[in-house]
Amino acid sequence: MRDKNKAAVTPPMGWNSWDCFGAGITEKDLLENARYIRDNLKEYGWEYVVCDIQWYEPAADSTHYHKFADLCMDEYSRLIPAENRFPSSKGGKGFSVIASEIHAMGLKFGIHIMRGVPRQAVHRNAPIMCEGVTARDIASDYSICAWNTDMYGIDCRVKGAREYYSSIFKMYADWGVDFVKVDDICNTEYRKDCPYSAKKEIELIREAIDGCGRDMVLSLSPGPATIENGRHLSANANMWRLTGDFWDDWDKLKAMFRRCEIWYKYVSEGCWPDCDMLPLGHLNVNYPKEERYTNFTREEQITLMSLWAVFRSPLMFGGNLPDNDDFTLSLLTNKSITDINQHSTDNRPLVCENDRAVWTCIDKDGHRVLAFFNLSDSDLTISVPAGILDEGKPYKVTDLWTKDEKTCTNAKFSVNLAPHNSKMLTFYE
Amino acid sequence: MRDKNKAAVTPPMGWNSWDCFGAGITEKDLLENARYIRDNLKEYGWEYVVCDIQWYEPAADSTHYHKFADLCMDEYSRLIPAENRFPSSKGGKGFSVIASEIHAMGLKFGIHIMRGVPRQAVHRNAPIMCEGVTARDIASDYSICAWNTDMYGIDCRVKGAREYYSSIFKMYADWGVDFVKVDDICNTEYRKDCPYSAKKEIELIREAIDGCGRDMVLSLSPGPATIENGRHLSANANMWRLTGDFWDDWDKLKAMFRRCEIWYKYVSEGCWPDCDMLPLGHLNVNYPKEERYTNFTREEQITLMSLWAVFRSPLMFGGNLPDNDDFTLSLLTNKSITDINQHSTDNRPLVCENDRAVWTCIDKDGHRVLAFFNLSDSDLTISVPAGILDEGKPYKVTDLWTKDEKTCTNAKFSVNLAPHNSKMLTFYE
Amino acid sequence: MRDKNKAAVTPPMGWNSWDCFGAGITEKDLLENARYIRDNLKEYGWEYVVCDIQWYEPAADSTHYHKFADLCMDEYSRLIPAENRFPSSKGGKGFSVIASEIHAMGLKFGIHIMRGVPRQAVHRNAPIMCEGVTARDIASDYSICAWNTDMYGIDCRVKGAREYYSSIFKMYADWGVDFVKVDDICNTEYRKDCPYSAKKEIELIREAIDGCGRDMVLSLSPGPATIENGRHLSANANMWRLTGDFWDDWDKLKAMFRRCEIWYKYVSEGCWPDCDMLPLGHLNVNYPKEERYTNFTREEQITLMSLWAVFRSPLMFGGNLPDNDDFTLSLLTNKSITDINQHSTDNRPLVCENDRAVWTCIDKDGHRVLAFFNLSDSDLTISVPAGILDEGKPYKVTDLWTKDEKTCTNAKFSVNLAPHNSKMLTFYE
Amino acid sequence: MRDKNKAAVTPPMGWNSWDCFGAGITEKDLLENARYIRDNLKEYGWEYVVCDIQWYEPAADSTHYHKFADLCMDEYSRLIPAENRFPSSKGGKGFSVIASEIHAMGLKFGIHIMRGVPRQAVHRNAPIMCEGVTARDIASDYSICAWNTDMYGIDCRVKGAREYYSSIFKMYADWGVDFVKVDDICNTEYRKDCPYSAKKEIELIREAIDGCGRDMVLSLSPGPATIENGRHLSANANMWRLTGDFWDDWDKLKAMFRRCEIWYKYVSEGCWPDCDMLPLGHLNVNYPKEERYTNFTREEQITLMSLWAVFRSPLMFGGNLPDNDDFTLSLLTNKSITDINQHSTDNRPLVCENDRAVWTCIDKDGHRVLAFFNLSDSDLTISVPAGILDEGKPYKVTDLWTKDEKTCTNAKFSVNLAPHNSKMLTFYE
Repeated sequence: MRDKNKAAVTPPMGWNSWDCFGAGITEKDLLENARYIRDNLKEYGWEYVVCDIQWYEPAADSTHYHKFADLCMDEYSRLIPAENRFPSSKGGKGFSVIASEIHAMGLKFGIHIMRGVPRQAVHRNAPIMCEGVTARDIASDYSICAWNTDMYGIDCRVKGAREYYSSIFKMYADWGVDFVKVDDICNTEYRKDCPYSAKKEIELIREAIDGCGRDMVLSLSPGPATIENGRHLSANANMWRLTGDFWDDWDKLKAMFRRCEIWYKYVSEGCWPDCDMLPLGHLNVNYPKEERYTNFTREEQITLMSLWAVFRSPLMFGGNLPDNDDFTLSLLTNKSITDINQHSTDNRPLVCENDRAVWTCIDKDGHRVLAFFNLSDSDLTISVPAGILDEGKPYKVTDLWTKDEKTCTNAKFSVNLAPHNSKMLTFYE
Repeated sequence: MRDKNKAAVTPPMGWNSWDCFGAGITEKDLLENARYIRDNLKEYGWEYVVCDIQWYEPAADSTHYHKFADLCMDEYSRLIPAENRFPSSKGGKGFSVIASEIHAMGLKFGIHIMRGVPRQAVHRNAPIMCEGVTARDIASDYSICAWNTDMYGIDCRVKGAREYYSSIFKMYADWGVDFVKVDDICNTEYRKDCPYSAKKEIELIREAIDGCGRDMVLSLSPGPATIENGRHLSANANMWRLTGDFWDDWDKLKAMFRRCEIWYKYVSEGCWPDCDMLPLGHLNVNYPKEERYTNFTREEQITLMSLWAVFRSPLMFGGNLPDNDDFTLSLLTNKSITDINQHSTDNRPLVCENDRAVWTCIDKDGHRVLAFFNLSDSDLTISVPAGILDEGKPYKVTDLWTKDEKTCTNAKFSVNLAPHNSKMLTFYE
Repeated sequence: MRDKNKAAVTPPMGWNSWDCFGAGITEKDLLENARYIRDNLKEYGWEYVVCDIQWYEPAADSTHYHKFADLCMDEYSRLIPAENRFPSSKGGKGFSVIASEIHAMGLKFGIHIMRGVPRQAVHRNAPIMCEGVTARDIASDYSICAWNTDMYGIDCRVKGAREYYSSIFKMYADWGVDFVKVDDICNTEYRKDCPYSAKKEIELIREAIDGCGRDMVLSLSPGPATIENGRHLSANANMWRLTGDFWDDWDKLKAMFRRCEIWYKYVSEGCWPDCDMLPLGHLNVNYPKEERYTNFTREEQITLMSLWAVFRSPLMFGGNLPDNDDFTLSLLTNKSITDINQHSTDNRPLVCENDRAVWTCIDKDGHRVLAFFNLSDSDLTISVPAGILDEGKPYKVTDLWTKDEKTCTNAKFSVNLAPHNSKMLTFYE
Repeated sequence: MRDKNKAAVTPPMGWNSWDCFGAGITEKDLLENARYIRDNLKEYGWEYVVCDIQWYEPAADSTHYHKFADLCMDEYSRLIPAENRFPSSKGGKGFSVIASEIHAMGLKFGIHIMRGVPRQAVHRNAPIMCEGVTARDIASDYSICAWNTDMYGIDCRVKGAREYYSSIFKMYADWGVDFVKVDDICNTEYRKDCPYSAKKEIELIREAIDGCGRDMVLSLSPGPATIENGRHLSANANMWRLTGDFWDDWDKLKAMFRRCEIWYKYVSEGCWPDCDMLPLGHLNVNYPKEERYTNFTREEQITLMSLWAVFRSPLMFGGNLPDNDDFTLSLLTNKSITDINQHSTDNRPLVCENDRAVWTCIDKDGHRVLAFFNLSDSDLTISVPAGILDEGKPYKVTDLWTKDEKTCTNAKFSVNLAPHNSKMLTFYE
């Protein structure tokens, strides 16, 4: 049996199209971002290029969906790329040409899907790749997405359910897909009053990936995942979202600290509780009403990157990479920070108050790292928590963002932080 | 403006096909029940013959729906009777032949509909009777039935929503429909976390009836309606359900007392909070697994009829009428009881305890009526509550079910009741 | 049996000490307000002078309680007035001297109590007026106030519970109390997970009043009362609060419209759903941090008075009356408005939207009254709802606040209203 | 700083008085159970002798409390043992004599306390061991136990709060207490609508123990603890309850599996999520209405012990030890099982279904252990989950309860289990 944890030995790093292109991503934009990664980011570990929602919807053009739209679909009720947006998919080639190009850059390719079977297939009573079964037979009459009209959930108990999921993941494997983000499936407690079981649908998807012949990272959305399901998510997925959609809003960033405090025990090889994409750089590029550079201040961006690093969240950049300014690029090319994210151990919170947080880990060289966060709206002095450093010894301290070094002769060390700012320090004896 | 209250000056009385035929009612069964009413019940006030859910589904055959079934629909996305089940509807005649026959018996005709527009029309992008608008345009992407796959709710804010409802009610008026039970619309608080508004959809339906050129009783299902919406329901509907589906189960009957206690203030001309159909006689006739004569004991049936009478609930019989035995028929042909239901005043609870209830009203002759209910599982003696009768006077007391008469010289009168039993007494000075 | 409804044939009108003196009211302030009513308001129907919470706490001085304070108590665990604050109570006279003075002014006297038995009596194991029973025996170990430490609730099932309530109400009757506001008892659903029953405690209080030998208005606080308990409250109390504490805040005033819409069916002789005191004039007189004249604009004050009038809420003024300015006094001495409150019929909402409301009633002369409310933050034009006036006829229209008269020849009449403003109009044919 | 985790390096094992003596435990019973442990159980690791609730209440005699009882208390508002029940405490010796005796047996001594300060001290305005501060000053007016009337919670923000907790734990240290079970503090989300913070009170208790000069295990009750507080509990306590009170009821035992699945990540040195006492043997000895030998079948007892072992719950026996029969004793003296509980690693669930569970761990010799549980009411065959054993190899398999050994040549091994039964197997290569 394939070990699902081997598909994501460290937290996946890459780029996702949603924050900059919404549902309107095209082949051209996708490949431009891939080339930017190849040229600027690959050496720091950035690897995945992920095409987000509705690549099968010809008219999709922003973060807002066209309800009940006609979707591109093959004869087995499987959604396929819209040719007007992904010209290389013509002739039934799906995403295989794009995947090949990305692979040729030394990168990996991912796609987004909604759980379930297309509603249009159900209402057309279209066949699926299972003798004598139609889309109508496998659709659940109880489970329906609250925010998008493309799909019905699957009734996992009936014949054809397993075969349908197998048929789509085999197609993705043929295309060369390395990463699948499955949506409308992760915040399952929300639906607890109905017989539909998202857990069973997740298990079917796991099984379909295990049998598709190719390693694929399985990422589940949206959150908030509930901690009561932590074991099930760990057993079946590689990433799962801790919150609803994360955007460039301080309240959401502050709230993420509480979520990380709750979930840090689940961070392990192949299991990466997910703080969501990084809404940095140029956002909502093709949607005039919401187009902007990130609303986060520079201090807040440092805080965001530091938390995602020390918690070991997946790192999926959300802005349009070619539009990055120098500061934004510098956030992604700090080797000390990406190393913390990829290779640290003993990651855990030490202080979790409303106005502050302190996290710690051991870096790959065995040094103690402390991350100090000022979550309040005033200046704050935060001390090293008792017991984490040896009080008698002198330490050399390096700031991982500024590269400043200093010596402290005593563990009674403290840092002064402006509102929303943070520091990430390594302590050498 | 038509006054909606004039369509139901007293609580509607009649028969509904659901409890005996589920979704599988046919023209033949419908007319047989109509003829039974004409021959046995009309003189007691029974009047409406109501065809319940999915008359537009050719394969419907029981209380269980065929999910995502193909439905009979006209060119304007309006559902029409399935010809295999309602042969007189051939040639586009809809229910007009059946309605005429029922009218010729001196009775009235009703139908059930689900709120909204057919999903199949939405996915076919079919036109509605509004220039340039399709079913897809008016369907709400937020509102969907949790237990039946026929329809999407309507987005009341968009062009075509009003016109669609107008088009279906005009068709019903042409057919000769006198009563419409609209389903999946009454327990609206259930959906409070979504932008869809059942209140607005109810208002559109009200407006469509007001403009259709024919009086129609508007009945809303399912419950529980929430008392916070009492004013809105009173302003727009003639009947609304107080609970989920009521069946022949003592716990449900006992629970109805609390619902009646909560709602009695809303009982008034044209406004009839609805305790649901009477699950008496022969039930689920065509569904072998659930076919039965009512599970209620005779005492419980007396209790049910007494509560529905003194509360002034609509009275819609649920069993297959031609299969009635003498006892069942006797419940429907007690003129004293139906008169209480149709013509009493000052209806209100006096005692509402877990083990007992006492209700009162004034009958059409001006006499005080008291209904005593033993809700417990033991024998119970219940006294006349203080203050309701004049303590000094002698009274003659008539039992409305047994017709027994006796004299009591003192208001300190009490009744002995077996478990689940009840008595309904008139007090004459 | 005394009829509890006769104690409050019309909505009680008067003054309550809470909004201006908090828990720190003294005899002097109480009588000054009483004299103001006698001299300025009595002729308009204002009648009750109510001493609010903690008259038994010597150190009470503001709206904030001293937790676990020592309270003045007699030998039967009954709280009595603090002599330092109510000097006439010396020598065991309780409130009898004050009540006599107020009665001599032609007014009525009321007091506030917390449900239950003093905690200090329980922990001292003090006797109550029931042979062999102590405060400890009747205290409920489950029911405790969440915001004040004076009392434990009563376990209504045990011997002594009835006798304790009887003993305090007999004392109040001896003092000459005409009105009792019982607190911490009305929002009972809040406690549904514990065996304590506020319903039973309300019933014991009802019984104690019925047996005390004097008519007393029974007022229950705080809200929100739940509409499911409407019948029980109607059967036992004269007033019950619809919300939590109401203060001079537009959001609370706007929210009251929804509460009135829900409760209007319960307004009837002896049964007055209560919108709470009028936080107008000079508030929190003795509490520097919160001392102020009402924050409501004049328009909002008109809106408040109009809603309380047309809904027929009790009218209990909350400010320190001697500090009234002319405008505040004018709100209380508009005979047309108080007449609507005291003597109108057919009171009901016609329009209940988020941005507007229209209510109606018939005044004591039989004329139709319409109250229009702009609940939005923009100017608004509101029309007479269809069906309420005879469309063909000309009407004379009088504005009840400005006394302006005009003639309208058509029911298609509308009013323009500034944000938060309202109009109350009488229509004569 | 003392490391709190060193106070409980392995899951605490011992005996607690609640399940057999309720609040009525006496010195004599306590010491008899201690002697039983010394003579029969000590060699298997059983060590703690814990005196549960209300040792300060002279009249306590069963699992039911005397509400508002007078409690034994010293001059600093600290509760002390009732001399009539614990004679050796006379002369202000508290529990020191008993602790010495138990220490002399080679065992450890524990007590139960309720969080907070005695209500009687508050209402007497008694001093605490902090100059100028009284019990009244530190009591929280918001936080009160829902099921026992002894205490008020502490307002952790005020002067004296810290000093009060310090004063009681210093006294316990003087007595020789090794284990403190603090009650009414662990299911904190229950109180989330009030300003009282159980988290802060837990932190004060932690601080008081750290400063008291003696190692003490800190055990928090009752559950359900919420998983969101996992980090806080881990940082401050040694044991915390996962559920409400656990008794000899299959539904409660079955439900514990879901709780263990949720909490297993928190099991680590010094941090022992607690499945509660073992309600085995002779229960409620002194309470005739509830006196019994455990209702669990032998199979269910095996299942209970196996889950507590493989999850590494604390093991606190609840029955009266001297009344043990041979079977009960055998459950406590199976060295293989107690070794799993004390010394296994990699403890985790592999299968968590409604009808079955499989857990695994590595025993102290490095062998893989699998525990199979049939949670259903039918016979069941459960296979070894894929991936946990090396499929190619032969294994020797030992049943830890029966000591049966067999060889299996293939990992496709399965066990047949009667309803509610379980097996715990070690696999050697």
